[in-house]
Amino acid sequence: MGNKMKHLLDIAELSRDEILGIMDEADRFRETLLGREVKKLPTLRGRTIFTLFYENSTRTRSSFETAGKWMSADVINLSASSSSVKKGESLKDTGLTLSSIGADAIIIRHPSSGAAKRLADWVCPDGVQGPSVINAGDGAHQHPTQALLDAVTMRQRLGGIEGRKVLIVGDCLHSRVVRSNVDLLRKLGAEVVLVAPPTLLPQGVENWEGVRHTCDFDAEIADADVVMMLRVQQERMHGGFFPSHREYATLYGLSKDRAAKMKDSAIIMHPGPMLRGMEINDAVADYDSTAILQQVNNGVHVRMAVLFTLIAADSALKEGR
Amino acid sequence: MGNKMKHLLDIAELSRDEILGIMDEADRFRETLLGREVKKLPTLRGRTIFTLFYENSTRTRSSFETAGKWMSADVINLSASSSSVKKGESLKDTGLTLSSIGADAIIIRHPSSGAAKRLADWVCPDGVQGPSVINAGDGAHQHPTQALLDAVTMRQRLGGIEGRKVLIVGDCLHSRVVRSNVDLLRKLGAEVVLVAPPTLLPQGVENWEGVRHTCDFDAEIADADVVMMLRVQQERMHGGFFPSHREYATLYGLSKDRAAKMKDSAIIMHPGPMLRGMEINDAVADYDSTAILQQVNNGVHVRMAVLFTLIAADSALKEGR
Amino acid sequence: MGNKMKHLLDIAELSRDEILGIMDEADRFRETLLGREVKKLPTLRGRTIFTLFYENSTRTRSSFETAGKWMSADVINLSASSSSVKKGESLKDTGLTLSSIGADAIIIRHPSSGAAKRLADWVCPDGVQGPSVINAGDGAHQHPTQALLDAVTMRQRLGGIEGRKVLIVGDCLHSRVVRSNVDLLRKLGAEVVLVAPPTLLPQGVENWEGVRHTCDFDAEIADADVVMMLRVQQERMHGGFFPSHREYATLYGLSKDRAAKMKDSAIIMHPGPMLRGMEINDAVADYDSTAILQQVNNGVHVRMAVLFTLIAADSALKEGR
Repeated sequence: MGNKMKHLLDIAELSRDEILGIMDEADRFRETLLGREVKKLPTLRGRTIFTLFYENSTRTRSSFETAGKWMSADVINLSASSSSVKKGESLKDTGLTLSSIGADAIIIRHPSSGAAKRLADWVCPDGVQGPSVINAGDGAHQHPTQALLDAVTMRQRLGGIEGRKVLIVGDCLHSRVVRSNVDLLRKLGAEVVLVAPPTLLPQGVENWEGVRHTCDFDAEIADADVVMMLRVQQERMHGGFFPSHREYATLYGLSKDRAAKMKDSAIIMHPGPMLRGMEINDAVADYDSTAILQQVNNGVHVRMAVLFTLIAADSALKEGR
Repeated sequence: MGNKMKHLLDIAELSRDEILGIMDEADRFRETLLGREVKKLPTLRGRTIFTLFYENSTRTRSSFETAGKWMSADVINLSASSSSVKKGESLKDTGLTLSSIGADAIIIRHPSSGAAKRLADWVCPDGVQGPSVINAGDGAHQHPTQALLDAVTMRQRLGGIEGRKVLIVGDCLHSRVVRSNVDLLRKLGAEVVLVAPPTLLPQGVENWEGVRHTCDFDAEIADADVVMMLRVQQERMHGGFFPSHREYATLYGLSKDRAAKMKDSAIIMHPGPMLRGMEINDAVADYDSTAILQQVNNGVHVRMAVLFTLIAADSALKEGR
Repeated sequence: MGNKMKHLLDIAELSRDEILGIMDEADRFRETLLGREVKKLPTLRGRTIFTLFYENSTRTRSSFETAGKWMSADVINLSASSSSVKKGESLKDTGLTLSSIGADAIIIRHPSSGAAKRLADWVCPDGVQGPSVINAGDGAHQHPTQALLDAVTMRQRLGGIEGRKVLIVGDCLHSRVVRSNVDLLRKLGAEVVLVAPPTLLPQGVENWEGVRHTCDFDAEIADADVVMMLRVQQERMHGGFFPSHREYATLYGLSKDRAAKMKDSAIIMHPGPMLRGMEINDAVADYDSTAILQQVNNGVHVRMAVLFTLIAADSALKEGR
């Protein structure tokens, strides 16, 4: 696997084996670090990783920064507010600048779908030389490390993913989490059901192979193995019809009553940041069946696995080892 | 001492011995690093420290970051402007996220009194497992490392604290420095006098044991050992009566004339950032009797001592060493 | 050379030998790191470097941060938006605070000309004790590391600087790059021609020794060895006459037609961030004759050389080695 992955842009472009390879690598990092106070591996010493965030994020940026630092990389943070973007520089030139400074990897979050792919084409035109690009969320398009950490969490909690029924609930239109998760879960053989009002479904969803959609949360919850709640991306709603907060919470929120209908073995997930009382009842968010913090924890190991796979694989490729 | 301290939230909860323990540890770090060009100890290698600042601060954040890095910890900075706070995430969930990412310590500055304590209860409900929380200033409540570095500085300059007369001058109402300093100085046996207009005294100050208050700066200055000037927290004044700038400077500013009344052995302190010409005369701020930069310098050693005490003590506790 | 340099504030104060010393050191760092995956030297381990940026910059701050980290220094970033500046603290007190925290070097970018020099006088009054100050751009005054990296790039591409003809084109009034480059290029014997409308020439330019100026780009381009395009500093234009965007691009932009007139051996430079389509044609920006990314790459090595020269030289001086 290793030798072929240069970037992580999109779940769709990964094979089943590549996905499982990263998931297994994440588990190995978790086991290596488990219970260890000194979390420091020499793996990426002397490598330079830039985070380039055009949108704010506590958990994703911190998680990547932690992953890089635990592997001894130098991590340098750039955010849109302090970058040359304000001076009108293009994403292309920002990327080429970071490449020329000496980036081994650029982790990008950007409001436009496809930004990570474009960046990768600019900084690494031949697919070999130049920094690796990792998509940390591009518009409503993809957020591949989120999907990978969700899959790692499901596998840990449920013993496997194949044949499991996963509900993805809420604002499926604006969520970058949906696309990545659907792609990944389908490749690993899960049954995926989107639960959302018609106004918050992605266009063309009826053509997504193997994915059902419905607005009847209650009809689906009893035999679900995973109930994945989405954040209501209010900041992305530019006009247009939208259920009121109360309606949304009533129809698509995970209330105590709804949670009570779930199977004992089923788990609750949320990519965060969550709005307690909106998408999810405050008490439900802290249930033992809730895997939200385990998702966060797995996030670091998944990002270690991705950085390791991309940068080390790249290294081996270039040196012909 | 070590084994019992998990967090540093409040001076009031520390015993006299715990206070002296941290102060002595700070002195040891100072001596260890004195004159050394290579300021790098392996003490906290592989430990992960988050700074979580909901209010701006150059000196406090930099000081903690320096302390952590000199002990080889990984330090990751989060500020309110770039955090999920903007997306509506609660402090509880932000704290639990950092804990799940793998924080050994969270250093928090927050505009609300009690925020650090609440965070500690959330991320470490049993008082043992979970990250240590360090209060780097919560509203007008506490700023314990400031009080500790002030005490270390007084001890260095005056030879001791017991029986010394300390004036705390100015906006005692909005200052988080006052509460922590009064608690600490009383525990170490100093005489404390608050010098402030009645409108800028904390409520209930008449019940603070062993603390006098007055609005007559000149009557108190001649036999004081320490004159601690406070910053005028103009950004915290939401309406309400307040002396004009000119009045404030005249009545509560440390002018050359007032400084001339001080004992030769007495020292001038300020927690910074200071407004020269407002709280303190420009020339006075640079007198040899002024200990302001020594306070800053001691700040790094105090924060090293706190991080070391909390994280290393915690570690020893968990491992049963 | 080393023992006499404490700060880097201004190209004018450097001797020809000091300039060549830094350039040679930069080349040595480049050679040392060339093709190396593990970019980590122990040179500045245990040294503490602060970046203090009162204006945004992706490339300069990242470049310095990378330079410091590759030499194993601790690098701590402060920006105006998160600093005590907002609370009214003076540059003097911010500088003294960083010095007291333990800064070995302060890298400052500031909107006021002369800010770096004033900072150096405050934090290092005797010219020996205290942190080194590096000017990363002060108003429209100086940006010495930019001039050094430009010179390193020219020397690499042209084999030398003496006798070469360098056009500096565009907004020479607001550019901090112009002053530093003119000073440096004159010291190394280049011929310098400023190409700009009269409204965008610095005052007193007619007295700059050995520097011509013109508004006829086409008359100068054919025998130039270097065409250095400047960024249009629109954010610095406070009223006043200015050519329209179309006029500017027509008269002072580097179009394909103009680029075609250049000698085969001539190179195109730009300090970045560039506005493609404004100062420079989009396709021209990617020509092989364009050295822009090489400038960025040399920037890291020049900053390594500067940090090494100042901090190591300072160290040797103090210790009498």
